[in-house]
Formats: sequence, C-alpha cells, structure tokens
Amino acid sequence: MVESSKSSVVLAANQAFYQAFETLDIDVMKAAWDDQAEVTCVHPGWPILRGWDDVMTSWERIMENTTMMQFVITDAEGKVEGNYAWVTCTENLTSVVNARVNGASVQTTNILHQRDGKWRLVHHHGSPVM
Amino acid sequence: MVESSKSSVVLAANQAFYQAFETLDIDVMKAAWDDQAEVTCVHPGWPILRGWDDVMTSWERIMENTTMMQFVITDAEGKVEGNYAWVTCTENLTSVVNARVNGASVQTTNILHQRDGKWRLVHHHGSPVM
Repeated sequence: MVESSKSSVVLAANQAFYQAFETLDIDVMKAAWDDQAEVTCVHPGWPILRGWDDVMTSWERIMENTTMMQFVITDAEGKVEGNYAWVTCTENLTSVVNARVNGASVQTTNILHQRDGKWRLVHHHGSPVM
Repeated sequence: MVESSKSSVVLAANQAFYQAFETLDIDVMKAAWDDQAEVTCVHPGWPILRGWDDVMTSWERIMENTTMMQFVITDAEGKVEGNYAWVTCTENLTSVVNARVNGASVQTTNILHQRDGKWRLVHHHGSPVM
C-alpha cells in the first residue's frame, strides 16, 4: 500500500473515530459516522449490526457501561478508492467497564466514506486477538 | 445497500472464495486472491497477516490440518465502488480439523478488487461470533 496524502487524510479520520470513542459521548460518536449510509458494525465477538439505529444503540450501551476508554492505535494502513477507503489497524485498548479495568488487543477493519469533504465511518469490524 | 447487477457479480465472487476454501486446494485458493495486491487477512482470533507470502502460508497451514470444510453463507451484502467492493456475510461452517468435527459461526468482511474483468480477494477479516 503506497502512503499518499489521500491515505494520510483517511488515517486521520480513522484516528478521529477513536478519539470520538474516548469521549464516551454518543453525539460525538454519531458525528464520526455517515448518517446517510447503510452503516454496519461488528463489535468483538458480536454478530453484525446493520442500520443506523442498531449500530448507534450498541455504541450507546457500550458507552453507558464504560467509565474510561483509551486507545493506542498501531499498524494502521489505509487504502483509498474514489470516495471510499478502508483502514486496517490494531486497537490496543485500556478500559474501565462496570468498574473493572481491562486491557485488550482488537484487530480492526474500518471502512470510511467521503461526503462534503469529510471522511466518516460506514463499517467497523473489530475482532478479539486471542 | 441497493442490490444491483454489479453487486451480484461481487457476491458471486465472494461465494467463489468459499468454494475455493472448500476444495482445500491451496492453488485454487490462491487463484481467488489478487496476487498483484498488498493482500491482508485476519483469521478468527488472529492478528492481521500482511503480504502474499504470510497470507498464503496461513491458508496452507489451515488446509493441511483440515480434512473437510463446508460453508453455508448467510446475510451477504455487497457494495461496489469503482474497482473495489466489500462484502459482509456470516459464515456458518462445519469442518473436520485434526480429526474433530467443529461447527462455528464467523462474521466476515471481505474486500475484493476487480482486475482484467475478474473480482479477487484483497482482504479477508473473519471473527468468531461468541
């Protein structure tokens, strides 16, 4: 994958998604997603969720049960094709969920869509690294 | 996601990937992937593998230890953008690995690339459904 200015923009948007997650504010998270798209989401160990309502409800539930979430993103690679792009990366995360501290490594594929000059998530697939 | 003839072609290529897997023949599997691309692969529970050699070696090892692999693919949806497409689907699989019968459900994101009129895999991400 060739590093280009285009993929830098996409990697920055990918990073912004994790910063949105860290805020634990559902409205900030919603702004990182394309609300005009058929969004889809696979949380680690979950079946796929399809459509805005199911995906955003899942983030709301996750955020409600989480008091702290911190990401270090490594091994991120982006590829752009027209108005779509995908990023693969490893999420090294520390979280406090239901008053318990957890460390985990999650392998992720994110797909983003550019609209009005802004890249937003349309698909997130995170899977546990055993 | 709108069903179109384009996405039908991509869904057929997605299905062909699973048929290639069922043959347990590494050369058939190799033909389902784009050997001119920076291919990547996440097997359920694994960290990401990057590059042709690592990805194909992983398939070889999996196939060596498997005497039967059968897929029923459900909930497949495809989206095409230019020469790239992605498919999300659920793999309902029955396998015989190291002489043990296993049933499993795997949630998958596949990304395909069209070259010379043929769609081939460039990224596969499968994750266990708990």
